[in-house]
Amino acid sequence: MALEQIAEVPAAEAERAVRNRLSMVVFSGDMDRLMAAFIIATGAAASGMDVTMFFTFWGLQAIKKPSPTGRSLFGRMLGVFLRDIHGVGPSKMNFGGLGRWMFKKMMKAHNVTPLPELRRLAAELGVRMLACQMSMEVMEIRREDLIDEVQDVVGVATFLEEASRSKITLFI
Amino acid sequence: MALEQIAEVPAAEAERAVRNRLSMVVFSGDMDRLMAAFIIATGAAASGMDVTMFFTFWGLQAIKKPSPTGRSLFGRMLGVFLRDIHGVGPSKMNFGGLGRWMFKKMMKAHNVTPLPELRRLAAELGVRMLACQMSMEVMEIRREDLIDEVQDVVGVATFLEEASRSKITLFI
Amino acid sequence: MALEQIAEVPAAEAERAVRNRLSMVVFSGDMDRLMAAFIIATGAAASGMDVTMFFTFWGLQAIKKPSPTGRSLFGRMLGVFLRDIHGVGPSKMNFGGLGRWMFKKMMKAHNVTPLPELRRLAAELGVRMLACQMSMEVMEIRREDLIDEVQDVVGVATFLEEASRSKITLFI
Repeated sequence: MALEQIAEVPAAEAERAVRNRLSMVVFSGDMDRLMAAFIIATGAAASGMDVTMFFTFWGLQAIKKPSPTGRSLFGRMLGVFLRDIHGVGPSKMNFGGLGRWMFKKMMKAHNVTPLPELRRLAAELGVRMLACQMSMEVMEIRREDLIDEVQDVVGVATFLEEASRSKITLFI
Repeated sequence: MALEQIAEVPAAEAERAVRNRLSMVVFSGDMDRLMAAFIIATGAAASGMDVTMFFTFWGLQAIKKPSPTGRSLFGRMLGVFLRDIHGVGPSKMNFGGLGRWMFKKMMKAHNVTPLPELRRLAAELGVRMLACQMSMEVMEIRREDLIDEVQDVVGVATFLEEASRSKITLFI
Repeated sequence: MALEQIAEVPAAEAERAVRNRLSMVVFSGDMDRLMAAFIIATGAAASGMDVTMFFTFWGLQAIKKPSPTGRSLFGRMLGVFLRDIHGVGPSKMNFGGLGRWMFKKMMKAHNVTPLPELRRLAAELGVRMLACQMSMEVMEIRREDLIDEVQDVVGVATFLEEASRSKITLFI
């Protein structure tokens, strides 16, 4: 019986580890989808889950410094359109920035934590923020263009490994 | 041996319970994505799965009454643009409402259950429809603005708890 | 003890099977989201996972031949707007096709495998590509309009069965 119990411990622990992990691909760079991503991430971390956010494509805007990016002509052109977390607009009804301003006002009026605060809270709660290497290369975003809270620049294999051990995996 | 078997029953049951749950965040309010969400939800419920839909942000349009929403100036302005399930348009090729009309025609021609019917079917099959409290507050949508089939207004913690016990979790 | 071990084998195997499966709904037909879908799919398959992609709605563009589709007036009108994998544009900053061209240039400059190559690689790595029957009917896309690599035309029940046995399920 004793041996059996020992043999069962790792399985039980592995199961607990799976139950307590949440991983997400943050593909979108829209204000509203980023709000959802960070609210889920901070909510999960606050309740004791181990959370990993894997930022890719437009999602990189959420972890970018405000400074312009890009080296080549195309890269710099793209850099003109990329925003940082303060500048991203909603996926619907942006109306050239009016929507962003309006949503910020409404969130403030209803005491909802703004996006930059949510990101800071996520870092404080130990949410792991990873950046996708391939999309950084395509979009010509360098490590130094990202905020210090980003823990690592990784490939898709790292995300898959993380997701395989997670109870919840989301693509946002 | 008997004791061991008893000890294993809850684990087996827990596993079965996990296997039979599907939870989804319905973030989008586009006709086509809502079709996908409700087709998956009703399909899963019909095959005996325990299904929870957590409506947030634009997804609230799917469970809203047709009446206008909002109290403040911004809230009422937003309310002008929000649709109910009969009025939502596709994410692509809406062309100012023409696309919605065209897709409805095509779905009817091919005997696809329309969105309001799918929602009714979901309720009949016992799909749990939950509304996100925080986005309701931001968008100034009250409980009485939502259809009666909505079972509860909850926070992100409730969704996470549900998702942790689910075999499949989707963000739509 | 021997009997017990035997009894535990299927459970262990089932667990392994679950751990090694990834299934995804490919709903989007945007170049950038399809890149993400195929990069995740090929990455997972290359690392030994069993991968299923379930293409639905706009995602059908990723597995369509270049030839026009549709029978009815609406179907043929829709067919004019549908693209194949070579013609899909990004979800943001397409600027009437300029964005597609620019992103292709940038991906080439940074040695990122282009989308049609990723699809070929996915087929070679044994990724199962399934097409959603219902959306094919609505959009009037026939089996012969799809590429040969598509293994089957299936309903939502098949996807749910696959997802129930998967460790990771994504909606892209």
